[in-house]
Amino acid sequence: MDLLITNARPMGAEPADILIRDGRIAAIGPDLAAPGVAVEDAGGRIAIPGLVDAHTHLDKSLLGWPWYVNAVGPRLIDKIDNERAVKKAYGLDPHLQSMRQVLQSMAFGTTLIRSHVDVDTEQGLAAIEGVMRTRQALAGQVEIQIVAFPQSGQMPRPGTAELLDEALAMGADLIGGIDPCAMEKDPKGHLDTVFALSQKHGKPIDIHLHEPGELGAFSMEMIFERTRALGMSSRVAVSHAFCLGFGDWQRTQGLIDTCAELDIPILTTAPASRDVPMVLRVTGAGVRMGAGNDGFRDTWGPYGDGDMLERAMFVGMRNNLRRDDELAVAMDICTTMGARAIDVADHALTVGGRGDLVLVEGETVAEAISIRKPRKLVVATGRVTARDGATLTAVP
Amino acid sequence: MDLLITNARPMGAEPADILIRDGRIAAIGPDLAAPGVAVEDAGGRIAIPGLVDAHTHLDKSLLGWPWYVNAVGPRLIDKIDNERAVKKAYGLDPHLQSMRQVLQSMAFGTTLIRSHVDVDTEQGLAAIEGVMRTRQALAGQVEIQIVAFPQSGQMPRPGTAELLDEALAMGADLIGGIDPCAMEKDPKGHLDTVFALSQKHGKPIDIHLHEPGELGAFSMEMIFERTRALGMSSRVAVSHAFCLGFGDWQRTQGLIDTCAELDIPILTTAPASRDVPMVLRVTGAGVRMGAGNDGFRDTWGPYGDGDMLERAMFVGMRNNLRRDDELAVAMDICTTMGARAIDVADHALTVGGRGDLVLVEGETVAEAISIRKPRKLVVATGRVTARDGATLTAVP
Ligand SMILES: [Zn+2]
Ligand SMILES: [Zn+2]
Repeated sequence: MDLLITNARPMGAEPADILIRDGRIAAIGPDLAAPGVAVEDAGGRIAIPGLVDAHTHLDKSLLGWPWYVNAVGPRLIDKIDNERAVKKAYGLDPHLQSMRQVLQSMAFGTTLIRSHVDVDTEQGLAAIEGVMRTRQALAGQVEIQIVAFPQSGQMPRPGTAELLDEALAMGADLIGGIDPCAMEKDPKGHLDTVFALSQKHGKPIDIHLHEPGELGAFSMEMIFERTRALGMSSRVAVSHAFCLGFGDWQRTQGLIDTCAELDIPILTTAPASRDVPMVLRVTGAGVRMGAGNDGFRDTWGPYGDGDMLERAMFVGMRNNLRRDDELAVAMDICTTMGARAIDVADHALTVGGRGDLVLVEGETVAEAISIRKPRKLVVATGRVTARDGATLTAVP
Repeated sequence: MDLLITNARPMGAEPADILIRDGRIAAIGPDLAAPGVAVEDAGGRIAIPGLVDAHTHLDKSLLGWPWYVNAVGPRLIDKIDNERAVKKAYGLDPHLQSMRQVLQSMAFGTTLIRSHVDVDTEQGLAAIEGVMRTRQALAGQVEIQIVAFPQSGQMPRPGTAELLDEALAMGADLIGGIDPCAMEKDPKGHLDTVFALSQKHGKPIDIHLHEPGELGAFSMEMIFERTRALGMSSRVAVSHAFCLGFGDWQRTQGLIDTCAELDIPILTTAPASRDVPMVLRVTGAGVRMGAGNDGFRDTWGPYGDGDMLERAMFVGMRNNLRRDDELAVAMDICTTMGARAIDVADHALTVGGRGDLVLVEGETVAEAISIRKPRKLVVATGRVTARDGATLTAVP
């Protein structure tokens, strides 16, 4: 697992060699040639840390299937009910589908993924098992965190809490939650369940919160209350958090400040059609942020392909980031800060950092995001996993 | 200029042959083989009309230059002043730069372009002349409309109106305008000038209106007033029109209804970070809409590459279009309706339509937008102009 990358430009800086030993970056500097260590010539390309997809759904992809003609109704529940029906009708194999999605993401340079995985009373734990098999199959090439996620609702569907409990016992890394008001129709009941499962298993929380405006603010405050009461600072993350971007500046500033106080990271997909947590504002307040592709090539919508450089572009576009130094923030959110936001430290191109990196085309980091050419090389913990936009492991 | 495309799927429908004669579509149907007519096998690919970039800036591109490190200030005037300085420092040749941009756009399948072109007291008419040379050089391969555009302001810079007058006399097709309040600081003075020049030359108007909320609504109403008073229905277009998307539903509905009444088309770039005219709402009210890439690879920002399929995706994302039938609207705005929005009729895959088409990859139109693979073939008025993502005319 020792690897020497020569003539790379870390984050667009001057050319240097990067030596990875035992899965960690051992040295960055000139002329690091070491006997017996495999060498990859970066050819002057920019090296960035492995990309981090901090919010996705590995069990939802239809990759490998014909184009899904979307004629789904407008409500959230239409999409959720439709998806369960499609999964059943297709006989989707969560292991196969997640393998396809992870390998596609790896080809784009992703080395770290947090995936929510559906748990419901129809499919039980099949999706959790399938994604766990994928995590096992690709161990050493990509790191996958699994969130047991009650997509179809927990309070409205008796038996779901027990399945979530089982998923955590089986190996899911986090407990998920979903719109405590809009979906669950019982914010107290749902959040009490989620926090109790977290406490029981000693595993952190990541809650989908799409609720806009004051409704989302209300749910957010119920999350704050429990985080504070249970001493769970740094143990609770919120995905989407559209309510942090609504029009009441003072109200949203209060929420953002409390996220900072309780160290609640915010994971965003930066959708163009919604209020969103603005990244310069939220990170400027000291809140960790990560970004994710959410689902793609699924029954939910037609956009995206798993490329976190494209997501960095979407973050930039949604936040009107135009300057190169602003785009560096988008890149940070999709790499080092994104890793911190999902509780992975030292995911950076520094000595001691994780031995993950991607060689990208472009004169600067901003240009790399702008042009998004196929990745020359992807390295995970010192191991080459993809070349020229394709993984070394074949896609099933 | 006769050409037969065999085995194409018009807009994703069943395979058919498409015969183009004298620059127009002469027939669509089975087995149209005609002696002496050149044949292109579409291989079952989807045929769409030529893509239409209804709002861009051909004189601003830095294509062919090193990456421009953007460190520009936050105000509109910072960007405008910076751009004039960069154009001068680089000694940019508007002909060369516009050739590069147009050819890149053609490679992506664009066959019809409306470009605003800077007219100011520093560079005079150099940009207009340069883009006119490009229009001439690529005649028959792409159609270019030129808008004489006072980017640096008209009222604040004496002599600009005279230059705009000259540009129209020289061959510019439309007279442009810019934020009558925010930039010009004299809405009456600016709009009176723009409408007078339009009347003098018998040429239509396309005004950049970035002003948000009530300020934009005010400027819009001044545009309405003049359009109505001068009997200029169908002769005035508004680009951006962010004010049609602000939060006051009743107010914006009044503006949209008046656009419909006066047949004022709206040209959008669907930016993720601004209020925008929502396409289902605005087109649903009977207003013609087109979309454009605006500038790209310039001093304004790091996003975009000229691909109107990508713009269709951005339109879809900004408007939360998820269903295939909704994405068909985005495609229409980037092709047939977009052409109508810039006053070009019959730009459609129907008998009698303009002989422009693009062969794209995908099972459906929605998938074509989603995956945006290199274009197999681009045809303009019956002439093949690009293959496999590259123009037949070399990029200078
Ligand atoms: Zn999600
Ligand atoms: Zn413009």
